[in-house]
Amino acid sequence: MSKVTFQIEGGNPVVTECNVGDNLLELARRSNVAIDAPCSGNGSCGKCKVKLLEGELESVKSRHISQEEYDAGWRLSCNSKVRSDCTVFVPDIASAYQSRMKTADLSSPDEIAIFEDCQNHLRQSGIHFVNRFRAVTVTMNEPTLDDTMPDNERLSRALEERLGVRQVRIPFCVMAKLAATLRAYDFTVCVKGELMEDSFRCMEITGPEDTAIVGCAIDIGTTTVTMVLTDLTSGKLLAKGSSGNGQIRYGADVINRIIEQSRPGGQKKLQDAVIKETLSPIIANLCRHAGVSARSILRLSVGANTTMNHLFVGVDAQSVRMEPYIPSFFSWEGLLAGDLKLPANPLAPVIIAPNIGSYVGGDITAGTLASGIWDKDEMSLFIDLGTNGELVFGNRDFLMSCACSAGPAFEGGDISSGMRATDGAVEACTIDKETMEPVLTVIGEAGQRVVGICGSGIIDLISELFRCGIINAKGLFVREGKRIRRDAHGMGRYVLAWPEESETGREVSLNEVDIDNFIRAKGAIFSAIDILLHSVDMTVDVIDKVYVAGGIGSGINMKNAVNIGMFPDVELSKFHYIGNSSLSGAYAMVVSDDAAAKTDEIAANMTYLELSTYPGYMDSFVAACFLPHTDARLFPHSVQEKETGI
Amino acid sequence: MSKVTFQIEGGNPVVTECNVGDNLLELARRSNVAIDAPCSGNGSCGKCKVKLLEGELESVKSRHISQEEYDAGWRLSCNSKVRSDCTVFVPDIASAYQSRMKTADLSSPDEIAIFEDCQNHLRQSGIHFVNRFRAVTVTMNEPTLDDTMPDNERLSRALEERLGVRQVRIPFCVMAKLAATLRAYDFTVCVKGELMEDSFRCMEITGPEDTAIVGCAIDIGTTTVTMVLTDLTSGKLLAKGSSGNGQIRYGADVINRIIEQSRPGGQKKLQDAVIKETLSPIIANLCRHAGVSARSILRLSVGANTTMNHLFVGVDAQSVRMEPYIPSFFSWEGLLAGDLKLPANPLAPVIIAPNIGSYVGGDITAGTLASGIWDKDEMSLFIDLGTNGELVFGNRDFLMSCACSAGPAFEGGDISSGMRATDGAVEACTIDKETMEPVLTVIGEAGQRVVGICGSGIIDLISELFRCGIINAKGLFVREGKRIRRDAHGMGRYVLAWPEESETGREVSLNEVDIDNFIRAKGAIFSAIDILLHSVDMTVDVIDKVYVAGGIGSGINMKNAVNIGMFPDVELSKFHYIGNSSLSGAYAMVVSDDAAAKTDEIAANMTYLELSTYPGYMDSFVAACFLPHTDARLFPHSVQEKETGI
Repeated sequence: MSKVTFQIEGGNPVVTECNVGDNLLELARRSNVAIDAPCSGNGSCGKCKVKLLEGELESVKSRHISQEEYDAGWRLSCNSKVRSDCTVFVPDIASAYQSRMKTADLSSPDEIAIFEDCQNHLRQSGIHFVNRFRAVTVTMNEPTLDDTMPDNERLSRALEERLGVRQVRIPFCVMAKLAATLRAYDFTVCVKGELMEDSFRCMEITGPEDTAIVGCAIDIGTTTVTMVLTDLTSGKLLAKGSSGNGQIRYGADVINRIIEQSRPGGQKKLQDAVIKETLSPIIANLCRHAGVSARSILRLSVGANTTMNHLFVGVDAQSVRMEPYIPSFFSWEGLLAGDLKLPANPLAPVIIAPNIGSYVGGDITAGTLASGIWDKDEMSLFIDLGTNGELVFGNRDFLMSCACSAGPAFEGGDISSGMRATDGAVEACTIDKETMEPVLTVIGEAGQRVVGICGSGIIDLISELFRCGIINAKGLFVREGKRIRRDAHGMGRYVLAWPEESETGREVSLNEVDIDNFIRAKGAIFSAIDILLHSVDMTVDVIDKVYVAGGIGSGINMKNAVNIGMFPDVELSKFHYIGNSSLSGAYAMVVSDDAAAKTDEIAANMTYLELSTYPGYMDSFVAACFLPHTDARLFPHSVQEKETGI
Repeated sequence: MSKVTFQIEGGNPVVTECNVGDNLLELARRSNVAIDAPCSGNGSCGKCKVKLLEGELESVKSRHISQEEYDAGWRLSCNSKVRSDCTVFVPDIASAYQSRMKTADLSSPDEIAIFEDCQNHLRQSGIHFVNRFRAVTVTMNEPTLDDTMPDNERLSRALEERLGVRQVRIPFCVMAKLAATLRAYDFTVCVKGELMEDSFRCMEITGPEDTAIVGCAIDIGTTTVTMVLTDLTSGKLLAKGSSGNGQIRYGADVINRIIEQSRPGGQKKLQDAVIKETLSPIIANLCRHAGVSARSILRLSVGANTTMNHLFVGVDAQSVRMEPYIPSFFSWEGLLAGDLKLPANPLAPVIIAPNIGSYVGGDITAGTLASGIWDKDEMSLFIDLGTNGELVFGNRDFLMSCACSAGPAFEGGDISSGMRATDGAVEACTIDKETMEPVLTVIGEAGQRVVGICGSGIIDLISELFRCGIINAKGLFVREGKRIRRDAHGMGRYVLAWPEESETGREVSLNEVDIDNFIRAKGAIFSAIDILLHSVDMTVDVIDKVYVAGGIGSGINMKNAVNIGMFPDVELSKFHYIGNSSLSGAYAMVVSDDAAAKTDEIAANMTYLELSTYPGYMDSFVAACFLPHTDARLFPHSVQEKETGI
């Protein structure tokens, strides 16, 4: 047995025991030490770097660790085996994906504006923001020797009279506390529940003061989870929060997670990671923040991709991944919060925004609802940049959708210094063409040092490197200078922050592999747009609006995104950033019965285009893997300024 | 700290630690040592006798312990405090109520006859033995790249087509294993569920071989729990079993248990005692015996008194006991096996036979169904002798019911040598008038030694003692002889078995306090019959049939019961013993939707008579507390033979 001490940056040390020869990443997982492994521990992503302080590890040398770093003790935990008692340092960056929970201030004008916009657009489209959940306060006669009706009948009669229903259903969880609650509040109580056609289904009984009924809308992204609590009576937002998806340590992409789920105990492990570790603490936190009890959450809605939906529900997702790619469900009624042990009323229905294919999920149908494109005459393109990219094109008459494997680059995955759009991330930058010196915009308080770079920052950086002629159309470095470094193999990189400037003491840079990864990601998006239009015999000229959604950040610079050939070269005024449309859609669905029904309708009428088998897709993709494109005529506004010499 | 060793007769010793001064009975409960305490530990029943072998206990002297017994080390555990390390012997008799589980052989003609009778009578009354549960085997096309319907839709379509329903509902527990089950059985599966008006609610999915769908009917008596498993398709009995109700250690009667339930943690403690400790092991055992899985149990039914129903469900029963005596429910739809964590399909409805008052419960409405009296022109009296006595009188036009606090004497409670009708119990006896020697019938294998005496044995014994002039009309001993002993206070007792003859090495006898307790119990039954008839202006002459049900045992001698003035003096041919009618009724309800509906109808139309406030009840009761009655004209056939001298 060996004793391993994890010294966690900014946290308490964790001491654990293991056998000599045990894998360090596996040990960390077992010991609840958060170390990101987006590639699921196969050595390809390089995110799981830790620093050996004492003792001995047997590690495979990796291209992600330079000689200086290796000499200083840096190792990839995924390819290290424990050889003796040892102490390892786990830097903050190693768990950057699993960032700490945030409860955003609702007074943030951005957040409110997005939700109000969504609501207003949907109202204009005829969606009523009402639902069938009710909190009803009733007073009953106290029983006497001459009036010995049992408690449940007494309550039923009172509710029948009050609500004009024929039947009242009292489930176990209400019955269990009925006698005590009626007597504690002298037979004046508040009953919360769901009004059906001619019956009322009780879900909770409380004192007359507690009349809150709450909806919880959740966006489960592959990388990030975000949710809001809302008052089901008024539709008012009560609280909002987000955190990294705890499943990230089992892989950054859906494929690696499905593989992890197939291992023994995997279904529970993946489900626990998202429900117990991620959602439950946020819900508890938001309830506290809003001053409501979890049992007053009477409905939840979820916008998530097909795989996330399966992992969330704890249903085998293997068949999503394997030919012929058959999910267990697209849409499914009848799921309850109690089935998943979510901290909410156990009888609360969990509405899952319907999936329409293995790779176009409920996040897209909810997002399509929120975008409003289903009710417009004009032709709209809806692009959701998440861990993958999904697209919807159409108008009130038709909707086409497809998914492309863009990978996690937009959220900082597959990029050596990449990170999510949280504190310390470079979210925007410009480069001086002459000096090649950057000007960085970093998320966080004034004085925040750089930790890494997020999606919108990478778009800016590549666009600027290309504009300044520092990289060529293939993404290779063609200029030299102080900021341009090369390794022993000649691979170039651009240094954004020197070790002494950065938060972590390590250099923050973008190298040719990163750029190549990103070009493939943006190429996937553009070629998907190209094929989607092609499939309906259209070209980019027909596009009236482009709605861009996703966690890439509100800082996304559309001009730069067009400049690198990621988005089609249409008028910039046609682009609209609509934030987290999956969450906006889920919010509408939880508050409005109409919106939930409309989402089902959208899903039922949306056509799914399978790109991988579409003739010409690969050609289109390869052509798009240049800056901006092999066919530069497609991007008349893309700029590569003439080099002015050193 | 002291170390206490419980040496359990016929079991492994239990060693535990406690503080000096701790109550021995409480310690036994904490340590899971079964010691009966029908009086809930207030020293009145004398059942919790144990023998101190080593060490020191501080015990209050009890009338239940003779000087010889005290000198030999016998103590009541309820009034003993631990003073040092000690070893106590726990005799089998101390846990006689909590008898070991039995899985009766279904080939027993008695059992089968009772159930067949019940079924046949109900069929003759127009009850159809069919229900809405189904096991359906369907075959689907395997998915291909051209046929990518998700699993849940694929299954729904197949079931819709097969069953002609418009909607199929797939709950979480089925969805969770859907993908794996479809693929394990090549898309030919058996789906078990409930057929509704135009929908089918799936409850379980299995391979095509496993088509069993099972109902579980349970009688939860205050003292004994009995259940059967039945095939829901054919109505065939699959297995039967019973055991003592584990709640017995919290008191023999409902009042003591309600008091225990009101203590901190009491709701869970009492519920666990009946569900986890009593029902779950029997169900598991019966499933094994019948070769079915617990998840194939798709419906359960329960016949139990109002308090047992509340404790079973885990609902506060205080208001059942306290004026104005308001239960949480009489009838209640919507309870599921999963709510109670019963080992069955979690979605299986649990039908509770409706209560009609605080002291006339579902065991009586189910029993009334089984008795068939609701469909007859003739006037019938239905008597259920359980831990209390309940009566129903009437015919197809009306039904009146009442309850009397007869106490647990019919099941051996409140009787110094009393026990349930299990091995070692004297179930019948005669006495030779001259020699006063008894001839005993003892339950068990040939050669079984006497342990105690059960209800039917007590009826015989008192009747014989009275007939032989050994006791007088007040139940006091008026003859002397070898079998008649008296204690220091002059209290007489009749010895059934000498210490050297008995199984336990202790004398088995019936003393004047026992007889008095029993006379009060039989007086309660008779006066209840008297008042019930009086309330509808009738007398015993109108009675066409008397149906006697309950755990008193099939050995009950009706002639003797009349002889002591327990039952009215009507023609003996009018009496019918119908066994456990609560279980028979529950069985009908679980198999037959008609029977379940009929039970609701019976309950809704039954009038409840509150005896305690009925004018003249106390007078009637006092008059009945003699052998056979103060008004001997009511019992012309009661015999007290002329004494022939010694």
